[in-house]
Amino acid sequence: MEKKKGRVTLPSEENFLTETKELMERWGADAIRDSDGTKLDDSIKQLDAKIYTTYFVARGHNEFAQKHMEECQQLYLMSMFNTAVTETLEIDFMKGYFTEQLKPDYVHDPKKYWEVIDRTTGKVVDIHQWEVNEDKNSILITDAIPWHEYTVSFLVYAIWDPTQMYNHITNNWGDKAHDIPFDVRQPHSNEYMKSYLTQWLQENPDTDVVRFTTLFYHFTLVFNHLGKEKFVDWFGYGASVSVAAMDAFEQEKGYRLRPEDIVDQGYYNTSFRIPTKAFIDYMDFIQKFVAEEAKKLVGIVHESGKEAMMFLGDNWIGTEPYGKYFENIGFDAVVGSVGGGATLRMIADIPHVRYTEGRFLPYFFPDTFYEGNNPVIEANENWLTARRAILRNPVDRIGYGGYLSLAYKFPEFVAYIEKVTDEFRNIYDTIKGIKPYTGIKVAILNSWGKVRTWQTHMVAHALWYKQIYSYLGVLESLSGAAVDVTFISFDDVIRDGVPKDVDVIINAGDAGTAFSGGEKWADEKLITTIRAWIYNGGGFIGIGEPTAYHHQGHYFQLAEALGVDKELGFSLSTDKYFTTALEKHFISTDSTSFDFGEGMKNIYSLSEDTEIIEYSNGEIHLSSHDFGKGRGVYIAGLPYSEENTRLLMRALFYAAHKEGEFLKWHASNVYCEVHAYPLIQKMAIVNNSLNEQTTLVYDGQGNSQKVTLAPSEIQWRDFSNES
Amino acid sequence: MEKKKGRVTLPSEENFLTETKELMERWGADAIRDSDGTKLDDSIKQLDAKIYTTYFVARGHNEFAQKHMEECQQLYLMSMFNTAVTETLEIDFMKGYFTEQLKPDYVHDPKKYWEVIDRTTGKVVDIHQWEVNEDKNSILITDAIPWHEYTVSFLVYAIWDPTQMYNHITNNWGDKAHDIPFDVRQPHSNEYMKSYLTQWLQENPDTDVVRFTTLFYHFTLVFNHLGKEKFVDWFGYGASVSVAAMDAFEQEKGYRLRPEDIVDQGYYNTSFRIPTKAFIDYMDFIQKFVAEEAKKLVGIVHESGKEAMMFLGDNWIGTEPYGKYFENIGFDAVVGSVGGGATLRMIADIPHVRYTEGRFLPYFFPDTFYEGNNPVIEANENWLTARRAILRNPVDRIGYGGYLSLAYKFPEFVAYIEKVTDEFRNIYDTIKGIKPYTGIKVAILNSWGKVRTWQTHMVAHALWYKQIYSYLGVLESLSGAAVDVTFISFDDVIRDGVPKDVDVIINAGDAGTAFSGGEKWADEKLITTIRAWIYNGGGFIGIGEPTAYHHQGHYFQLAEALGVDKELGFSLSTDKYFTTALEKHFISTDSTSFDFGEGMKNIYSLSEDTEIIEYSNGEIHLSSHDFGKGRGVYIAGLPYSEENTRLLMRALFYAAHKEGEFLKWHASNVYCEVHAYPLIQKMAIVNNSLNEQTTLVYDGQGNSQKVTLAPSEIQWRDFSNES
Repeated sequence: MEKKKGRVTLPSEENFLTETKELMERWGADAIRDSDGTKLDDSIKQLDAKIYTTYFVARGHNEFAQKHMEECQQLYLMSMFNTAVTETLEIDFMKGYFTEQLKPDYVHDPKKYWEVIDRTTGKVVDIHQWEVNEDKNSILITDAIPWHEYTVSFLVYAIWDPTQMYNHITNNWGDKAHDIPFDVRQPHSNEYMKSYLTQWLQENPDTDVVRFTTLFYHFTLVFNHLGKEKFVDWFGYGASVSVAAMDAFEQEKGYRLRPEDIVDQGYYNTSFRIPTKAFIDYMDFIQKFVAEEAKKLVGIVHESGKEAMMFLGDNWIGTEPYGKYFENIGFDAVVGSVGGGATLRMIADIPHVRYTEGRFLPYFFPDTFYEGNNPVIEANENWLTARRAILRNPVDRIGYGGYLSLAYKFPEFVAYIEKVTDEFRNIYDTIKGIKPYTGIKVAILNSWGKVRTWQTHMVAHALWYKQIYSYLGVLESLSGAAVDVTFISFDDVIRDGVPKDVDVIINAGDAGTAFSGGEKWADEKLITTIRAWIYNGGGFIGIGEPTAYHHQGHYFQLAEALGVDKELGFSLSTDKYFTTALEKHFISTDSTSFDFGEGMKNIYSLSEDTEIIEYSNGEIHLSSHDFGKGRGVYIAGLPYSEENTRLLMRALFYAAHKEGEFLKWHASNVYCEVHAYPLIQKMAIVNNSLNEQTTLVYDGQGNSQKVTLAPSEIQWRDFSNES
Repeated sequence: MEKKKGRVTLPSEENFLTETKELMERWGADAIRDSDGTKLDDSIKQLDAKIYTTYFVARGHNEFAQKHMEECQQLYLMSMFNTAVTETLEIDFMKGYFTEQLKPDYVHDPKKYWEVIDRTTGKVVDIHQWEVNEDKNSILITDAIPWHEYTVSFLVYAIWDPTQMYNHITNNWGDKAHDIPFDVRQPHSNEYMKSYLTQWLQENPDTDVVRFTTLFYHFTLVFNHLGKEKFVDWFGYGASVSVAAMDAFEQEKGYRLRPEDIVDQGYYNTSFRIPTKAFIDYMDFIQKFVAEEAKKLVGIVHESGKEAMMFLGDNWIGTEPYGKYFENIGFDAVVGSVGGGATLRMIADIPHVRYTEGRFLPYFFPDTFYEGNNPVIEANENWLTARRAILRNPVDRIGYGGYLSLAYKFPEFVAYIEKVTDEFRNIYDTIKGIKPYTGIKVAILNSWGKVRTWQTHMVAHALWYKQIYSYLGVLESLSGAAVDVTFISFDDVIRDGVPKDVDVIINAGDAGTAFSGGEKWADEKLITTIRAWIYNGGGFIGIGEPTAYHHQGHYFQLAEALGVDKELGFSLSTDKYFTTALEKHFISTDSTSFDFGEGMKNIYSLSEDTEIIEYSNGEIHLSSHDFGKGRGVYIAGLPYSEENTRLLMRALFYAAHKEGEFLKWHASNVYCEVHAYPLIQKMAIVNNSLNEQTTLVYDGQGNSQKVTLAPSEIQWRDFSNES
């Protein structure tokens, strides 16, 4: 069989032509990119490959930026909490912040743009009761109420780009200049970004693809006084704020934002916060602006005959690919980093682009590519989790980043990637555009809905946090499972009801967060819509503290549907008789043990009608309950694992009353999965593990046969739809 | 040494005269009582002992009660939650209730006294939109809003006394008549209780002490349709409710209670609920009434030349011994069951009585006294925990209950109790009325304050619940420790500030409960008073979720004083750098391991100023933080154990900045304690364990000597105050 080529992007670097050609050949690469810290030789640029060139819009132009420091980006920050001990309170509002990154804005009148808040009462302190001391970066409150706590919300200029700052500090770049981020909402910056791009395109004739890294506003990343990360929110709009933005917002939306609308008690509207109307409006305002301006840049790129690609990260704020303005920008492609199945789907499912590209791990950096380490292991694990998702909806290209010369020193790794790239092309060529069989349609219900598609419960991109892994597992499991997944918001349901084709709704998260919903569940329209929908046959899976909001005798507002609630102490006097798990249950049929991650305390059954599937330590962690024609399933937590993926799949089919269809296109062994493509009468049987596996494989009629798969193997089988 | 006698009460029974005399002699008993199910012979009544006779006021008089069924006691109950599927909803409101105990009250107009509540909105349904069907015990709502949930709050008559019901069902008493509880607020009942008592006193000339078991209203105990416990609240006012009470309340307080004020979303105002003003008023109203009526009964008893003793349990509602009306009743004595140190102090500290008596465990019942079991073990454990408390403040008498003939069959037990009674008398005679040395004064701060002295976090008397044991340990530890303990409420602090002599405040409980405080912590006066008090040198110990109420950027409203807060997900974006416990700390000096019971998740340090003492599983469980001249200590939970008692003591001394005084009257071994009585220049060194212990014993100057104590031993030493 002739070796296929294409759909693979290689990083390269200076003085590495011969090896680049060799690896291009072996991996079938048809595009070459530069990376942070690498440049491409002219000779490489002449190879038979598309050339991607990294492009920064709003930083890396200090010669311009230094002339227009008044156009630096801005942020609203909150000081620490300060307790008034007397009626005079001095607040060192920059305490804990990194002065190399952030500089108080004294250009605009603090009395107009800042707020001093009494955090004991929540009231704003009258501007006549405080004064700024610019020399000391302090505020003196003269009429403080003793023993109240106060904070200052203040504007700063961001004088150092956070990504460059991170690299600069981490790699000890010494006196290398600090990239100054400028705000394209400002007149000179706006003009400059366009004229410079035009000039740059002329100066870079070999570039085929302008890889924007990214656009205007970095996700919020603020460092502390020790030069270490203090606050990181991959979704954070912090750096999009400015006096100009606040003024333009008022113009556009008809009301003025308060600093508190941005500062948000110090939480800065992270995606765990139930968004306020003001913040939703602000996001819309920024997204619209970013799309309008980005569209101009993309237009310039297209005029030059090149493609415009967006990197999903760094300065991506306002570009939300699942938001309503993204289509208008007109990007040709999006590229993003793949940390597993969910992040792959986050890229692959993006609409309105011609193609998507996943940058796979490991990055070719010395932290992985050092003597004695075997980078194949990480690559293999990354590939197996991503492959599940690719089999549902493939990205159009895969690629790598870093120093190619480093990877080249690991021949086993080179050989492994050769195998991966071949396998990827084979999958892609077989199934691209072919809808795989799905047994269930799932809606993830939270405050965000579509705009955060495959992006729930994330803090910093793909990093582990104790408080999120028990929920992230849900997305990871679904990303490669035979289900359709849609993301809907509470407001969607209030406005339009539950989409007709949804079988199961999942609500997962800690109480009070945007993912669980908090006070939203006291909304009469929301609760009655969902309740009616379940009663009439819908499936509802609650994970962690679903629908949690203490109101009128219940904590879980859907307690009567779920059959369980959480004991807060108020109902300890009511006897809890239902404490015995069933010996067998459809949902736990394949479970050898349970892992609920952080789990959840004090969940109890409301009545004998609740099917308790797991009960330990005096509480329920897994249960189901019939509600009318529908069902409510409760799961205490669901970190990602093969067993938990199976448990979730069974829970979905059970909640949807589709148990009878569970053994269609199914593998009995939890480490294996079947992906069927009826349109082309092919199925892929995959081994998601690093060990050999034997499994029963069920076809669409429920007939099974035994199959043995080598470690990581994928086997393709043809089938007849009539058989 | 001549054997001392007295201060001990023995149960006896029919045909047991000789053995009773023998045990009276050996145990030094000077009083004899009947028990549930036992009666005393005339011959026993003639012994040289006070005779206690159990007396029921409001039950056990069916010949009267059956003639006045309209004077039965009443309760407000809530139906289950019912989901409206159409605009018509029929609610079987008695579903789940025990019809042998409870009967709907159709005598009084349901339209006037019942409420149908839309639990989705919290609104009361108009009385024209529902009808009662008396034959079916159902309510038909005719204008229900589909998919809303509804409950009915309805009045019932209680036709079976709960304690008798429990014994009746448990012991299969078959067709024995059901004791009907009547309400002394009603005219015939009120007249009857007095006339019958007068007659009874004449008929029982041998009775010296009328042991009221108890008065008018049983704590709430409701059974389910299977005849099993459905709801139990040892503090519950459920059975004190009636149409007459509701009407009298309006008369007295000037406003009318709603059924919802009693039903409380189905929580029935348990002591975990932050009490509403209406419920506080209602408690006051009932307590006042109970005291007035009880005073009449006590007067009748006194006129007959006998004593009136109250049993702290069963029908004790409204008598709260730490409440403001208890003194008026004029009881001579209170007797209560001793489950450990805290329950002993609950009895021993009761003011306004001439003497208190503790009924010790085990009860002489077949569940403990059966062949092959050694009742000495339970007796010994019970004695050791109670003895700690007795050494702080002794009850005046101890006693036992049940079948004396059973105990008599266990000679080792008889010998052990002989030893215990001797030891009790010796302690009592030595220290009664002598204030022991205390190093610290502690205030337990919650919604209840004084009225629930030694009664926090309890559901059913002395029963274990998963949700309470991590807090109950605090009281148990304090009950026998060298500290003064006072109980103060949030309203006390708001009104009067923190009492002058308090060194440390403890706030312990789950968020939102009356013990933690919930929304009370948003009260400006409360928070500023406590904050100022700590800053000026006070110690504050928070256990579990202290001061928890999400408001203005903090969950723990005293986060800035405690140095820790709980991560709710909102501040995940803020880096948490402080994750390393100190190698040594004053508080953990004697800890070999930690047991925080249920513990607490996601507690983090706010800054480097927090002294982390224990950190595991990604969270803090023990820490301290300086705040001004004061300190805030955080503990995740504190089940009772010798090690945790020591940890709490160290935390108290540390919080109070009194570390220098810790080694005064102190035992180095955690299983031992020192109780010093400077006024009489004596100290008791006790071994609280069942094993031999060696310890350093420190005197008041911090000088130490090594002492070895036999299992359970108590050693008395004289000392000179000048030494």
